[in-house]
Amino acid sequence: MSHDTPTHPASAGLSVRDAQACIVGKIHPIGTENIALEKALGRVLASEVRANRDLPPYDLAAMDGYAVRSADTAAAPATLEIVDDIQAGDMPRVALQPGQCARIMTGAPVPAGADAVVRVEDTRPGPDGAVEIRLPVPTAADIRRRAENMSQGEIVLPAGTEITPATIGVLATVKQAVVEVYRKPRVAILSSGNELEALHEPLDPDRIPDSNTHALAAQVQALGIEPARLGIARDDPAELSRFLEQGLEYDVLLISGGTSVGVHDHVRPALAALGVTLHFWRVEMRPGHPVAFGTSDRAFVFCLPGNPVSSMVCFAQFVFPALRALTGHRRLFRRVLPARLTHGIKSRPGRVEFVRVALTRNADGVHEAASAGPQSSGDVLTMARADALLIVPADSRGLAAGETALVQLLEAGACQDDAGLEGDA
Amino acid sequence: MSHDTPTHPASAGLSVRDAQACIVGKIHPIGTENIALEKALGRVLASEVRANRDLPPYDLAAMDGYAVRSADTAAAPATLEIVDDIQAGDMPRVALQPGQCARIMTGAPVPAGADAVVRVEDTRPGPDGAVEIRLPVPTAADIRRRAENMSQGEIVLPAGTEITPATIGVLATVKQAVVEVYRKPRVAILSSGNELEALHEPLDPDRIPDSNTHALAAQVQALGIEPARLGIARDDPAELSRFLEQGLEYDVLLISGGTSVGVHDHVRPALAALGVTLHFWRVEMRPGHPVAFGTSDRAFVFCLPGNPVSSMVCFAQFVFPALRALTGHRRLFRRVLPARLTHGIKSRPGRVEFVRVALTRNADGVHEAASAGPQSSGDVLTMARADALLIVPADSRGLAAGETALVQLLEAGACQDDAGLEGDA
Repeated sequence: MSHDTPTHPASAGLSVRDAQACIVGKIHPIGTENIALEKALGRVLASEVRANRDLPPYDLAAMDGYAVRSADTAAAPATLEIVDDIQAGDMPRVALQPGQCARIMTGAPVPAGADAVVRVEDTRPGPDGAVEIRLPVPTAADIRRRAENMSQGEIVLPAGTEITPATIGVLATVKQAVVEVYRKPRVAILSSGNELEALHEPLDPDRIPDSNTHALAAQVQALGIEPARLGIARDDPAELSRFLEQGLEYDVLLISGGTSVGVHDHVRPALAALGVTLHFWRVEMRPGHPVAFGTSDRAFVFCLPGNPVSSMVCFAQFVFPALRALTGHRRLFRRVLPARLTHGIKSRPGRVEFVRVALTRNADGVHEAASAGPQSSGDVLTMARADALLIVPADSRGLAAGETALVQLLEAGACQDDAGLEGDA
Repeated sequence: MSHDTPTHPASAGLSVRDAQACIVGKIHPIGTENIALEKALGRVLASEVRANRDLPPYDLAAMDGYAVRSADTAAAPATLEIVDDIQAGDMPRVALQPGQCARIMTGAPVPAGADAVVRVEDTRPGPDGAVEIRLPVPTAADIRRRAENMSQGEIVLPAGTEITPATIGVLATVKQAVVEVYRKPRVAILSSGNELEALHEPLDPDRIPDSNTHALAAQVQALGIEPARLGIARDDPAELSRFLEQGLEYDVLLISGGTSVGVHDHVRPALAALGVTLHFWRVEMRPGHPVAFGTSDRAFVFCLPGNPVSSMVCFAQFVFPALRALTGHRRLFRRVLPARLTHGIKSRPGRVEFVRVALTRNADGVHEAASAGPQSSGDVLTMARADALLIVPADSRGLAAGETALVQLLEAGACQDDAGLEGDA
């Protein structure tokens, strides 16, 4: 342990926005793979997908009813002879002549000669083999035109498209049973600290349970990636190096703990000795000040605070967009929305502050934010009760009741194009 | 095929809100199971969880620095003798006497006699074995008190808590390696229609690809449930009955197609013959009018439109909250937020309308909504490009550019307590 002045004074930490830009600037997707459509939800297309057919494949009925020549209905009511009965999946057997119609079901092909569909509710049963059309219909009424939704050969999904349920629907429509996607990074999680007790160790009331391994793993799982849990490295340089060496074989290594001023003395030289360049090691935010990002030949390394709340807040700002970028996503950041404060919040200016809040909606549909509980960075229960992080800009001395501020949703999958940190210095 | 007047006229369909209330009123979680913490993300606790320890287990340092008797710093600068060096994970060896201090790391226990921590940056190296404290510190400064975050025996997570990453952190903190959660429903998906071509069948340009099985499956997967894909039932009563019988062995059966007026003639009697009571079969919404909900002894049955867009919109309104309720969630509905329209949208009054929109955020952080493309219910590409469904109230003739309306997020996991359908008749 040494008391050296840190190489960068605290005031020289990056803004959250600059730290995010540093990370995103160094990250690119790490290769592609072909996977079955059933496994593709949440992944990102690495190559464009084209339509392999026209859709609809032919003019088809948009409603149950009767395919008609619209001219025959001009003087409705009109009684027309039923010459065919076309179900979805059938092909029409006859072309319509003047005065004729065909019973037709939604999704069935419109017969030659017909140029409109009359809905069943606009008809009345006629004499045997005929139907009474009650209203005139214009040309093209209730017909879906061939290729109006997609034309064979057109690009329907560009590379870079996130695979949502609707995208899966499009891929199934063009019969892409296998898709090329960006591959998932291999992620390892390491906790460090002599005071930590692992989940499966017997309870020792004097030790601190290692919750970070599990909370970080769950944040990674929420992105569809199953991380490796390396365990707990004690504050011993040789043991730490062995763990770090193992962790650097992954694409991404998350280390929690060991980032306060003194303990940095262990982690930073151990990472340097293993070829890791640290790009920053302090960010002007609360909680979460001591957070570092580095790169080796192949791995991206994040040193997160040992404090469970701080490590989660830092994950949301830095690791979340990094893992999104690695998997080819374009929308890297958690969704942010405006919310009205139900009470005042004090803040010390100088660092952007993330306040754990619970969200409700008022009668106008406007979100309201209230503190989720004590904001001590040790209070992991407040984190568990929070829906969002309220962003207090770095230059703010606090916000008053009734003011509107931005909140960052903590829910998995709520993403947007930008970080929404407008007040971040 | 018959042309009977439907038993309920179209105007008698339920509102979306009433249909949701009907569903939610009949659904309850279907049993519990014990699972490993690593598999628990997204599940809901079926029993309360109590703290098995005090946290912190002792008074501990919140910062790196020196544990002191605050009275000794009243006349700072003051030089104190260093009598111990306490790392996180160590226990203090000596109690402080007046004029003494102990070097201490973040997370390490504060020694007896000490009542405050002085941050390392507020000190200067002193003569051998001593340190100069530059500023006076008040009692309790930078100390986290024993049990301030949780006390042994207290309920930290009530039954019904959704297991988020932060909840996983709390569960790891109280060493719950196994948790009791509501079990997942078994879900089956069935498509119906002679015109449908399965994903693995050879391409026939005259047929319609079955995209619903896959898009619905992905919507179910997004809720953490791997559904069974039963395949395609042709419009043959015996075949349909065999498929339905198989589907009714699951907890939830989703049938797409076969819900338009005519085809109902097959599905409704087949379901009735198998002991299914239909509670509604029409909802006043666009797209998605023909949607039915039924129950048998053990299964919940949803008949969704065959149209791919309509079936997804209906899933979001009805099946999504049903599956959330079955898994014990309290927040059943997709998150809704206000967004400003970038252009006018026309609507026919009478039914609530869901318009596929893309979202952006303006400089004030306000969401703006623009149409995601053609709104024909056949246009699955517009669904793939949409971030949200804009809700046009049933009594509206349209919305003007610049007006604010509510949009329902389509992103997985973006949930809230209520459906937000304020304009739903």
